[in-house]
Amino acid sequence: MNRSNPPSADRSKSHGSDFLQLRIEEAPAGGRSEWLARQLRQAIADRRLPVGSRLPAGRVLAAELRVSRGVVTDAYQRLIEDGHAAGRGRNGTVVVAAPLPPAAPPGSSPSGPVAAPTSAALFGSPPGDDVFDAVRAVPARIDLWPGAPDLAAFPRSAWLRAERAVLADLPAAGLGYGDPRGTPELRGALAEWLARNRAIRVDPAEVLVVAGTAQTFGLLGRVLRDDGIAAVAVEDPGALGARQHLRHQGLATPPVPVDDQGVRVDALADTGAPAVLLTPAHQFPTGVVLSGARRRELMAWATGSGGLIIEDDYDAEHRYDRPPVPALRSILPEHVCHAGSVSKLLAPALRIGWVVAPPRHREALIAAKRFADLGNAALPQQVLARLMRSGALERQLRLLRTRHRRRRDAMVRAIADHLPGAVVHGAAAGLHLTITFDAAFADTDLAAAALVCGVRVQPLSWHRQRPGPPGLVLGYAASTPTDITEGLAVLGRALRRLS
Amino acid sequence: MNRSNPPSADRSKSHGSDFLQLRIEEAPAGGRSEWLARQLRQAIADRRLPVGSRLPAGRVLAAELRVSRGVVTDAYQRLIEDGHAAGRGRNGTVVVAAPLPPAAPPGSSPSGPVAAPTSAALFGSPPGDDVFDAVRAVPARIDLWPGAPDLAAFPRSAWLRAERAVLADLPAAGLGYGDPRGTPELRGALAEWLARNRAIRVDPAEVLVVAGTAQTFGLLGRVLRDDGIAAVAVEDPGALGARQHLRHQGLATPPVPVDDQGVRVDALADTGAPAVLLTPAHQFPTGVVLSGARRRELMAWATGSGGLIIEDDYDAEHRYDRPPVPALRSILPEHVCHAGSVSKLLAPALRIGWVVAPPRHREALIAAKRFADLGNAALPQQVLARLMRSGALERQLRLLRTRHRRRRDAMVRAIADHLPGAVVHGAAAGLHLTITFDAAFADTDLAAAALVCGVRVQPLSWHRQRPGPPGLVLGYAASTPTDITEGLAVLGRALRRLS
Repeated sequence: MNRSNPPSADRSKSHGSDFLQLRIEEAPAGGRSEWLARQLRQAIADRRLPVGSRLPAGRVLAAELRVSRGVVTDAYQRLIEDGHAAGRGRNGTVVVAAPLPPAAPPGSSPSGPVAAPTSAALFGSPPGDDVFDAVRAVPARIDLWPGAPDLAAFPRSAWLRAERAVLADLPAAGLGYGDPRGTPELRGALAEWLARNRAIRVDPAEVLVVAGTAQTFGLLGRVLRDDGIAAVAVEDPGALGARQHLRHQGLATPPVPVDDQGVRVDALADTGAPAVLLTPAHQFPTGVVLSGARRRELMAWATGSGGLIIEDDYDAEHRYDRPPVPALRSILPEHVCHAGSVSKLLAPALRIGWVVAPPRHREALIAAKRFADLGNAALPQQVLARLMRSGALERQLRLLRTRHRRRRDAMVRAIADHLPGAVVHGAAAGLHLTITFDAAFADTDLAAAALVCGVRVQPLSWHRQRPGPPGLVLGYAASTPTDITEGLAVLGRALRRLS
Repeated sequence: MNRSNPPSADRSKSHGSDFLQLRIEEAPAGGRSEWLARQLRQAIADRRLPVGSRLPAGRVLAAELRVSRGVVTDAYQRLIEDGHAAGRGRNGTVVVAAPLPPAAPPGSSPSGPVAAPTSAALFGSPPGDDVFDAVRAVPARIDLWPGAPDLAAFPRSAWLRAERAVLADLPAAGLGYGDPRGTPELRGALAEWLARNRAIRVDPAEVLVVAGTAQTFGLLGRVLRDDGIAAVAVEDPGALGARQHLRHQGLATPPVPVDDQGVRVDALADTGAPAVLLTPAHQFPTGVVLSGARRRELMAWATGSGGLIIEDDYDAEHRYDRPPVPALRSILPEHVCHAGSVSKLLAPALRIGWVVAPPRHREALIAAKRFADLGNAALPQQVLARLMRSGALERQLRLLRTRHRRRRDAMVRAIADHLPGAVVHGAAAGLHLTITFDAAFADTDLAAAALVCGVRVQPLSWHRQRPGPPGLVLGYAASTPTDITEGLAVLGRALRRLS
């Protein structure tokens, strides 16, 4: 038996297991559970326990070590809590992630990319349609994926109270097949919300409730295609997910460059596309705000060519260091299809969004929604309408702003500490920021190396159609300042190994 | 002023309004509110107050009649409650439906069809894509539209309790973007439900949660088209809505006749279609159960030709006078795509359903769901999973069976009383029955005439692709026995006027 790595316990007082040659001392520092957890973490770190391997049944290991079963259960629980292992019910406890690699000692030569082949392949270029799900399926201890707000701040009590009130008041007929446009209550509340927060004046009858902005892209793609539109220009860089949704509906997505004033309208006109998808309030992923001059050019383009602007207003309510930006829809109602959702206000898991379409596409969009699913579920619509009308949603937004700003600040500090060569973009608003590097390496390799170390980020190149400097898109809203700082430290180490 | 129709009050003691020339007596029978409601109903009946007209402001009418404002408000409320009027907020109270036509005195000559032109147009043949919404938008006092269970029996308290438990237990990450296939908890609960109730053995990983069967048809339509399938044969008669959804995806829907053993498999083979949509447990709308011989023929067709069977198991759990019918999926897993939902178990407004696809279409169907809306909302999935696992859903089903059977019996009796010439089909199970008439008239005229009198039903011809005898599809589950009896009385009178 290989005994090259024996624990330092006093052999005469120890009991042992063949598993990892564990030998427990009489009274280890920190207690027996902590001792066992430490041994297992070490074994995972030096690959004696590879990812995917199963830990022995607690009953068995406890007997071999002559400790109570609770000691083993507790140690396993610690590994689960810190992301090294996962409990799989009857399948026992399985190793799911290696811990952080130790920081390279100063002056030591880098050991080359640490990306496991599977992770590198996951991020491959060009990214496939299922890249989001594939990368998200890998366990990660620290998730800096952009797009989610602070989910721990979800107003669970207010939601439950509103649901109780809805269930008390709703007539039985409200549980039947409803209006595919959404409930009158929610459409009314949304019209008021849009007026208060986005300066959009709209009749409730013109608001269509949908299952999030992803559904908006799908429905709109179908409607535009049926209307003879074959291409929707998109920002470059611009969200990969949105582009994938439009392409799934058979639309081309010619790229339009974005500079420090936002989308380049001259280049938009050059594409000849009759429609464009924009994120004017906080461009994804660069964070640029569309300037006044560009807004005027865009208005001239839309009114001159009859062009359609799809305004993805995905995080316009979240701003820290700058005044609010009015929605394009508030200026150009005839030419703008305005899309929003509660994914960044409450939670993506609610799958509630809205579209305010220009008159010429309104009826077709309602028909598309009816054929998609006959309309959103009624109860969550009624609950949300109550939260909007009671002011609870505005309170939630204020709470999120405070929490998100703190997290944003922690991330900016951690970038300065751990990625001193990175340039930060678009941190004045939103739930994410973008960093770029003045260096030549594949950002997909960096993202893959980080994922191997348990930190999930998006490579900037995912969101580009044409080449550009490497970078990362980093969500800060859904992670604690501690996790953000630790995550950036991992990224810093991974980058040093790459370069 | 026209005083041809004065009330019989003692003029010396009455006060009056120019509106309808109302003159109120000192102490009318039943009280002043009842008197006023009666006058208004009469005026609506003889079209002095047409549908769409607005009632005077309560304050004004009360002053003119020298009664308290509460008397008028109360009278208006009675009209709203019995479906003659609707409160429209600041727009006041509006007449929305004419009352039942008086029964024709025996021996009097029928006065011809009573269908208003707008209603007749609504039901026009062939029915348009928006026929359901258009007809549903018309107010109806008695709704015999098929498809909904007893919505008053929805387990509101159990739902709220389960939601409280879900909100207490759900980790914050459960509020983010989730698995597009559905939450593991609901997929697990559904696999158990399908095993217990439908004899289907399926791994939870193979269950896809969707937003109801309407979404299933949309997703599947797209997947089949991408797979080179251009036609899905459908039962004739068969559900209009399902046909519309498939056609919206660009699929042809060749009709296959249904006889007293179910779909005619020889005719299915003749169509050459590589796929067929069936309702084997309780054929919609005829209620026929697919016979054992036909099941064997269908298995031979599927295995011989590689054909796909889409099994719409829409109300298989609801049966009264017959043994359960095993799902086709339980016999032919490689060739059957099984679709179900909670619309008929709990409520259509929940928009939760499921699909168990054969292996060859599984991945494409998951991708289609991801592109449609990134997956169902998480909270209702978790609530439903709890209700399924706690046995609450089975209790609900037993409760519904008792209530629905009583309503079914009331409808069968009322048909015998008021439509003695009608033949009843498919009443041994489900939430609806179908009646046919051995006569020559347009069932759309009958449905339109009923709607004018405040009773909503579906004409059988909507669900036919080829001509057949006239009939109606009548839902009984969502209406009280009293309403059912009254609704059938209206249908009886409307039919006598038509013939």
